[in-house]
Amino acid sequence: MNIIEIIEKKRDGLALSEAEIDYWIKGLCEGSIADYQSSALLMAIYLNGMNDEETFYLTKAMTYSGDMLDFSMIDGVKVDKHSSGGVGDKTSIALMPIVAACGAKVAKMSGGALGFMGGTVDKLSSIPGMSVFLTTEEIIEQVKEIGIAMVGQTGNLCPADKKIYALRDVTGTVNSLPLIVSSIMSKKLACGDDVIVLDVKYGDGSAMVNIIDAENLARSMISVGKQYGKNIGACITSMVQPLGKAIGNVLEVKEAIDTLHGNGPEDLNELVFMSGAQLLSKAGLYTYDEAVKVMKEKVENGEAAKLLKTMIEKQGGDGRVVDDTSLLPRSAMISEMRAEQSGYIAGLGSRALGELSMDLGAGRKNAEDKIDYSVGIVLNRKVGDYVEKGDILAYIHHNRPLEKAWIDKYHTVTRYSEVPVKAPKIVEKVI
Amino acid sequence: MNIIEIIEKKRDGLALSEAEIDYWIKGLCEGSIADYQSSALLMAIYLNGMNDEETFYLTKAMTYSGDMLDFSMIDGVKVDKHSSGGVGDKTSIALMPIVAACGAKVAKMSGGALGFMGGTVDKLSSIPGMSVFLTTEEIIEQVKEIGIAMVGQTGNLCPADKKIYALRDVTGTVNSLPLIVSSIMSKKLACGDDVIVLDVKYGDGSAMVNIIDAENLARSMISVGKQYGKNIGACITSMVQPLGKAIGNVLEVKEAIDTLHGNGPEDLNELVFMSGAQLLSKAGLYTYDEAVKVMKEKVENGEAAKLLKTMIEKQGGDGRVVDDTSLLPRSAMISEMRAEQSGYIAGLGSRALGELSMDLGAGRKNAEDKIDYSVGIVLNRKVGDYVEKGDILAYIHHNRPLEKAWIDKYHTVTRYSEVPVKAPKIVEKVI
Repeated sequence: MNIIEIIEKKRDGLALSEAEIDYWIKGLCEGSIADYQSSALLMAIYLNGMNDEETFYLTKAMTYSGDMLDFSMIDGVKVDKHSSGGVGDKTSIALMPIVAACGAKVAKMSGGALGFMGGTVDKLSSIPGMSVFLTTEEIIEQVKEIGIAMVGQTGNLCPADKKIYALRDVTGTVNSLPLIVSSIMSKKLACGDDVIVLDVKYGDGSAMVNIIDAENLARSMISVGKQYGKNIGACITSMVQPLGKAIGNVLEVKEAIDTLHGNGPEDLNELVFMSGAQLLSKAGLYTYDEAVKVMKEKVENGEAAKLLKTMIEKQGGDGRVVDDTSLLPRSAMISEMRAEQSGYIAGLGSRALGELSMDLGAGRKNAEDKIDYSVGIVLNRKVGDYVEKGDILAYIHHNRPLEKAWIDKYHTVTRYSEVPVKAPKIVEKVI
Repeated sequence: MNIIEIIEKKRDGLALSEAEIDYWIKGLCEGSIADYQSSALLMAIYLNGMNDEETFYLTKAMTYSGDMLDFSMIDGVKVDKHSSGGVGDKTSIALMPIVAACGAKVAKMSGGALGFMGGTVDKLSSIPGMSVFLTTEEIIEQVKEIGIAMVGQTGNLCPADKKIYALRDVTGTVNSLPLIVSSIMSKKLACGDDVIVLDVKYGDGSAMVNIIDAENLARSMISVGKQYGKNIGACITSMVQPLGKAIGNVLEVKEAIDTLHGNGPEDLNELVFMSGAQLLSKAGLYTYDEAVKVMKEKVENGEAAKLLKTMIEKQGGDGRVVDDTSLLPRSAMISEMRAEQSGYIAGLGSRALGELSMDLGAGRKNAEDKIDYSVGIVLNRKVGDYVEKGDILAYIHHNRPLEKAWIDKYHTVTRYSEVPVKAPKIVEKVI
């Protein structure tokens, strides 16, 4: 076997065998295959695609390229939820304590923010004192004790993914379905969870602009998960406007806490209950309808919020923020953005709002940028709402004076309609 | 401008601008663009192609990446002939002295052998004492004095081509029309010749297996040459069997000398006269028919052979070999290969014969291999000839005993037919 023949095969549109894909990933990690050979192969994959089997083999080879987390010492059903990412997506922070309170075991690893989309790890890190860097042993210990841990990536997880991602980033091969699927799923498979629910978002505030691409991504990820023997499902959700009202780390944590107290925005609440019921029913703990009922109870009786508090404290954070969100860091200034005309809100560019929030300091333009946790945007009106000229559209939390260009850009984000506009659905499809 | 956007553009099937191609080639040479980026772009070019303008821009950028040879100090019309390569192709060694004897100026640079196809530089080097490594000044001086010099590449010619070729070789992107065209033509354009005739071969003994690919290659090279302002033409010739009878360095030099004396094999003779007449008529020195007549005279009166002799001597070689080819190096052994059955010869695998000759030591498997000049194959029968079982098919010139596997392979090369077979034409088309 040699890498040139493997490149030529994919170049000619043929399917690669498991042995060929293993040979590539092994050589890539060991350095016996040059980066310029891997990048030629990545471009051939980008242009000629991969079938379901190839995508699975690639994912598996990447999964086994590093440490495999073994959660078998944790009794109970281990569940995981993965979001393809979106503006204002704080779902996990509300959802995971609820499903843990319902008896599922949660050892959740999340990524950091890059670009216009936030990352759960950064949001959790905005809670004073909270650590997201636990060892595998600490994670297992905590989940055994309280049923939940939410952390950043630990150990040497999927080094092949890191190497491939770095190459894709500089060779125009990021946006390839099999490469996206293998990148996400290899990290999921390296964690020892039993049940996975994927939240695949579409719309300009997410990685997939249209719903067809999102469905293809979901179906391909499910195919890989099933071939690996995982109990896996997905929902396709809308990111045509930001999820909930808050964008920015502390602001999103506050909104997640509100949701745990039963006071969350409607769309976030719907997504949390739908994903949670899917997780709990797939886990075999309840039927779908029972799960919804039990989740509601755990919110109403305060157990879910209490579990988040316990988790924060276990991970060194100030758990009091769960009872009193005013203890979370606050920005120096809050400014109001007001409607420039009357009408129904027809559109809110989620990507632009994500970028505006990033410009305030809430996100990273480069991997080494430091995040300003307290800044961001809280929407006061969303798509479908009627506003009079001068009504408050949003509150801007900021630590630096707002620049005119920033404000001008903000006003281009809101589109108005003279006739009523229907609010978009949050969950489009369950697969 | 940045290279990722350029890669993405070609990946998406769009045409690159001259500025984008220049940016790439400059960055490739300077090292500011990484090899893994160039190889991703090469794969995108392989799969999505390049139009005539892009191919010209790429060729031009590669041409200007290094030294440009200036032959303007040589009076007269400078002519060049390029062969896409084939088994037994010794055409230049016979042709160039004839056209030089007819008044064209010849400053010919050739490449070395790699793989199953020989290289003119190695064939010339098999003449005792002959040097093919002249400086540009020495070449100009010699052409001014005697009208001809045949050498290897000099100076820092097309460094971009060297770098790209090395990458293509290990990334499955060798066989791409725009990349082949730009590689060949950049070296031709960097030489200061006025008239170029391309000999594009097809058949399994050449780079292009079928005649359609060969025609496409020829038309694309002509397009590039014309856009650059060159007087350029091409002929499509057959490599379904080896050219002439000799394969191997000294054996091919001998056959070229025989041709200069008017005793060459029919196919080689036809090719030499046809290409020569094309060169001389394009150069405006004669009409096509006059050129054929004058070339014949120069062969018959010995001037062409005498010019080869003078050139060999000027370049330090033993010119007496032109009058007495027995002075050329000889192999220790000559063995006969005999027909295993009676019939008309229906096929001679040229590529296999090239490989068999290479196995004897006549070619390089790797760039650092040393060539054994005296070994090779001299065919006694070619396609269309009738043989009785036991007749001599070929003479093998060798320095090591022939292995059984080698002999067995030889016998699979010859295909027989019970019914008469037409000998293939050598020149298929003139463009």
